[in-house]
Amino acid sequence: MSDTHTLPDPRIDAQTVGDALLGKWKRERLESRRLAEDPRLHTIPGQSMPEHRERTLGQLGILVEEGAIQRAYPSDLGGGDNHGGNIAAFQELVLADPSLQIKSGVQWGLFGAAILHLGTRTHHEKWLPDVMSLKLPGAFAMTEIGHGSDVASIGTTATYDPDTEEFEIHTPFTGAWKDYLGNAALHGQAAVVFAQLITRGVNHGVHAFFVPIRTPEGEMLPGVGSEDDGVKGGLNGIDNGRLHFTHVRVPRENLLNRYGDVAADGTYSSEIESPGRRFFTMIGTLVQGRVSLDGSAVRAMEAALTIAIRYGSERRQFPGASGRETVLLDYGQHQRRLLPRLAQTYAMAFADERLLTVFDEVFSGARDTDENREDLETLAAALKPLSTWAALDTLQEAREACGGAGFMAKNRLVGLRADLDIYVTFEGDNNVLLQLVGKRLLTDYAAQFKPGDRAAIAKAAAAQLGDRVSRFGLRQMGQSIADLGQVSRSVESLRSTEAQRELLTDRVQTMVSEIALALREATKGIPKGDSRARAIANEEAFNAQQHKLIEAARAHGELLQWEAFTEGIEQVDDPGSRQVLTWLRDLFGLGIIERNAAWYLVAGRISGQRAEAVTAYIDRLIARLRPHALDLVDAFGLTPQLLRAEIATGIEAERQEEARAYVEARIAEGTWPIHEKELRKRDQERARAEERVQAKTSA
Amino acid sequence: MSDTHTLPDPRIDAQTVGDALLGKWKRERLESRRLAEDPRLHTIPGQSMPEHRERTLGQLGILVEEGAIQRAYPSDLGGGDNHGGNIAAFQELVLADPSLQIKSGVQWGLFGAAILHLGTRTHHEKWLPDVMSLKLPGAFAMTEIGHGSDVASIGTTATYDPDTEEFEIHTPFTGAWKDYLGNAALHGQAAVVFAQLITRGVNHGVHAFFVPIRTPEGEMLPGVGSEDDGVKGGLNGIDNGRLHFTHVRVPRENLLNRYGDVAADGTYSSEIESPGRRFFTMIGTLVQGRVSLDGSAVRAMEAALTIAIRYGSERRQFPGASGRETVLLDYGQHQRRLLPRLAQTYAMAFADERLLTVFDEVFSGARDTDENREDLETLAAALKPLSTWAALDTLQEAREACGGAGFMAKNRLVGLRADLDIYVTFEGDNNVLLQLVGKRLLTDYAAQFKPGDRAAIAKAAAAQLGDRVSRFGLRQMGQSIADLGQVSRSVESLRSTEAQRELLTDRVQTMVSEIALALREATKGIPKGDSRARAIANEEAFNAQQHKLIEAARAHGELLQWEAFTEGIEQVDDPGSRQVLTWLRDLFGLGIIERNAAWYLVAGRISGQRAEAVTAYIDRLIARLRPHALDLVDAFGLTPQLLRAEIATGIEAERQEEARAYVEARIAEGTWPIHEKELRKRDQERARAEERVQAKTSA
Repeated sequence: MSDTHTLPDPRIDAQTVGDALLGKWKRERLESRRLAEDPRLHTIPGQSMPEHRERTLGQLGILVEEGAIQRAYPSDLGGGDNHGGNIAAFQELVLADPSLQIKSGVQWGLFGAAILHLGTRTHHEKWLPDVMSLKLPGAFAMTEIGHGSDVASIGTTATYDPDTEEFEIHTPFTGAWKDYLGNAALHGQAAVVFAQLITRGVNHGVHAFFVPIRTPEGEMLPGVGSEDDGVKGGLNGIDNGRLHFTHVRVPRENLLNRYGDVAADGTYSSEIESPGRRFFTMIGTLVQGRVSLDGSAVRAMEAALTIAIRYGSERRQFPGASGRETVLLDYGQHQRRLLPRLAQTYAMAFADERLLTVFDEVFSGARDTDENREDLETLAAALKPLSTWAALDTLQEAREACGGAGFMAKNRLVGLRADLDIYVTFEGDNNVLLQLVGKRLLTDYAAQFKPGDRAAIAKAAAAQLGDRVSRFGLRQMGQSIADLGQVSRSVESLRSTEAQRELLTDRVQTMVSEIALALREATKGIPKGDSRARAIANEEAFNAQQHKLIEAARAHGELLQWEAFTEGIEQVDDPGSRQVLTWLRDLFGLGIIERNAAWYLVAGRISGQRAEAVTAYIDRLIARLRPHALDLVDAFGLTPQLLRAEIATGIEAERQEEARAYVEARIAEGTWPIHEKELRKRDQERARAEERVQAKTSA
Repeated sequence: MSDTHTLPDPRIDAQTVGDALLGKWKRERLESRRLAEDPRLHTIPGQSMPEHRERTLGQLGILVEEGAIQRAYPSDLGGGDNHGGNIAAFQELVLADPSLQIKSGVQWGLFGAAILHLGTRTHHEKWLPDVMSLKLPGAFAMTEIGHGSDVASIGTTATYDPDTEEFEIHTPFTGAWKDYLGNAALHGQAAVVFAQLITRGVNHGVHAFFVPIRTPEGEMLPGVGSEDDGVKGGLNGIDNGRLHFTHVRVPRENLLNRYGDVAADGTYSSEIESPGRRFFTMIGTLVQGRVSLDGSAVRAMEAALTIAIRYGSERRQFPGASGRETVLLDYGQHQRRLLPRLAQTYAMAFADERLLTVFDEVFSGARDTDENREDLETLAAALKPLSTWAALDTLQEAREACGGAGFMAKNRLVGLRADLDIYVTFEGDNNVLLQLVGKRLLTDYAAQFKPGDRAAIAKAAAAQLGDRVSRFGLRQMGQSIADLGQVSRSVESLRSTEAQRELLTDRVQTMVSEIALALREATKGIPKGDSRARAIANEEAFNAQQHKLIEAARAHGELLQWEAFTEGIEQVDDPGSRQVLTWLRDLFGLGIIERNAAWYLVAGRISGQRAEAVTAYIDRLIARLRPHALDLVDAFGLTPQLLRAEIATGIEAERQEEARAYVEARIAEGTWPIHEKELRKRDQERARAEERVQAKTSA
């Protein structure tokens, strides 16, 4: 195949695209990247767990010194009231060391943020300065051994004693021990402990309490116990551990009382009447963890693809017809492995910017409505699973695309993958989050109808399903007849933004309708009065639909990413950049359709011929984007100090140049040995020539 | 959903199924498992790289003491001439510590096996006893920095000097340095070095040489240099490193000369005339690495699923309609995540047994024909990629299914995943191996026709494509009409072994025909004489088909696994076991069809309705298999000493029992606080009752 790629017009403008990716919080991102380039903040592969933990704690001190952690805190306490900028800066730290990132997230994004968002003024003044200065390292004690995603069911109790005006924090059985907490094994001196608040014999649900756990010298306080979680699959710079509490007493004032309070006499009060809504409001203030992880995952993908695409653009393997060995990225399979993931990374980067914007609007107070909070939560719950899974997938594909070199710690890919593994189950298990999104989609769907109007839903669903219900009816036949022999037209229609939007949207809506319909049918025939039978029937029906619902949520998340990518391109003025990014967006959009082609075919949304046209067009897009691959990763703007991967430095091209020069010099001086294969070919040719001569002579 | 599972008839007999899985080399497997239970051979999570390397070397000594490594060597040198048993036993070691496994593989499966298979009697007598006793630790120096999968193009040279009767081993540029070699950084005293053999100005291609590299005290020998690869993504008990050679001289006799020799005067000779075939014959003797990895990957999957399914059968999360929290494995999504992977693991276990049998037939000499060797290579190249990728996928899904607990090193999943990562690119990069399989499929396909008979191929392909070519022609319409409203019948037909075989086989054949057709068309119109233009056109056409070809190879591998599973079941007499295993086989087979439903739909092989029936039947199979999940992992026979995962010991059930007992005791003594939600519900009910009373009163 062709060995050199003359870079065609159009071409992206790296600065323009780079700025679009950096987004609104460009300044904060660049500040944080400068910090992340500091060798004092970098992972040292192979460092022992105890050393890594000490180093990470020290790195948190450096962040404080460099003024890198205060952005989200109130300005009168030395913060910046800058919520979006805070998360943007935090996301960049993943390229310094994910342990440093997550430990700082524990200290300032969970422990500190819980005091900020769940506490009130007195708490802020009393504790936040020491939290910010790291004088008071703390743990965020929510998860229990027995309860991860289901926080509402935790077993730890905080029982109010009006005689002493104290809460008694207690973990009554092993399953209630707090687990997997950063800062719990070694460094935490206090913890925000989530517990069932019990006063006057009533359990008012989960609330948060400030609980001292350890002296500055590292002695556990009376009644508090700690166990070390030990070695983990990654993030070994963090001292994760367990905490258990045996009748530990804290003053009444240690209840973080923004959403619920207990008076001296034990009377409970809350502005939010419904215990369910109160719980979700409290938990909702902690959405920033999910927003943070979403963008961190994107940054890791950008690094992975920069490394793999640079290496793949230099590395050669197996001789080609051109006479030289072929560059890896010129292989069809190598392109199929990396370029669709590059398109996905762009989509996810734009989607994260969108998420961060909504987050900032809510938390800055600019648009802090119940509806926006709910949208923010759904958006975060849709995007974080897809990006954190994609990060693991992309890091792995990049590592494999770099072969043995990809497995070396010095090329970063394996370390990032190990550390990011846990991102898919913490701050909300990905499957649980997608189910949350799915439920929201069902609620929104049902909200179109009068409550309980089963007939209307069934009718609407049937209309939406279209020829799916009528089974290979007219619509599909019509399309496949119209398609016949007109590949170009069917490609044309796939290229348009509107066509892609329609196909992606239609899938989400239809899937949700189908599930809604199946759920509505569940209680058919069960008497209204038999609420237990109805509950069981509902649960069974829901369970039967769970896998599909999660797939629908995934489809919804992908649509959101596609929309964000499309909007992002609209902000780009440079025509060359727009064109290349549009191809990339098409690759992302059509990639989703190709992966789900069976669904589109069964639902009668595309014909078999159009499904083939999708694949053919993806092949063309990939070939078209191949020459832009290096530009597109350059636009990520990741400096050598951020990447720190030997194989991304041009070392492979140098080695190949050295090898090539050696061979050419030997050939020039006539000492390059001829290969036996060549010799045999020559012998055969000579023999044939002689035969011809003999044949002539004898003739 | 239902909380208890009364285990229905039929039920598997664990002993019967366990024996079927252990296969022909049950004795060797059980011996090796007993050894793998020895704590001296176990990984210590978090151990530093230097300590882990020392420990692993020591573990190799233990293997020697226990007589665990000699099985494949000649009996007159103290071996057992037992090739199948050797690999079977080796595979089991993955559960002790993959570092130990792979370092022993380097010593006895690569370094020692190269001397055995590429050397001759003198070499065997001279070196093998010390190799076996570990007196002589060695490296297998094939891969270079610049050449991984393409061994034929390596840069290291071995130039014969008739004056001294020596070979000069030389790595003339950095790209030619040997890399990623176990035993190279620290422990190796010799290496089998692969180099281009040059004598009398002719390069006879890659041959293997025995080259001493280090004194027993650890000093590098003159001209030999070593670099440490440092920390890797896993397998850190192995001292991988680089070796470079600067005009290092070894005696002529150090050429491992089974397939090619150099006389004292420099004359080259070989029994195999074609240099290409000679190269592949030499490389082919090393197929055992791939066979070893295939079964090791299966064992890791078995461990992962045993851990995740045992934990998922105990762990409860979120309250269900039954009043208790729901067991994870009762969730539809959790079942979808684990049970198809369980089916796949069974298929791969049976396929590995088949592979091992063919391997043993060839290497024992029982059926050592060229054809069998070729089949063995293709089989290994098809199975190793699928199983090693599946192992990473399964370990990851199991880790996520266990949440935070899955991320703890003490639960094994993350460590195994990190170590097995490299299995997908070593002993042949998975993509390169599948391409090899694809090429073999194309060759076999073309062999049906006269050479160059393009018209015949096109005709055959068109016939095979059937209604795909005629585009939504009669066949598909016929089927979808026949299917209309007859879901049961279309399910019936999917259930049959023959229907599954036909669908799976048809896909492989059709994909291969299509690719062959596309390739045949490539040189159309290019003059026969223009060999360069034809070569380039061929290369471009092949490259355009590369992705599809690899998919076809994958489909072929899956078909082989399905066939092996089917054959495996036929060997099982117990009717209950047969029934459950048949459901599991159906889940595996239909899972492949579901994943590739788009292909089947586009090709007109199934109707949309039948595609939906596949999914519906998979859902039913999963529900049917759910109660057998524990039995099916018990049949793997992995003891607690092999699993060593805290969460697979029943600890979670104990904790939940403790929590439950606590709550019940509080309820019994009347001290369990009422929840505010409950209170509000009661208040509302009371208010409503009062309203009714008032309404009555006022009426």
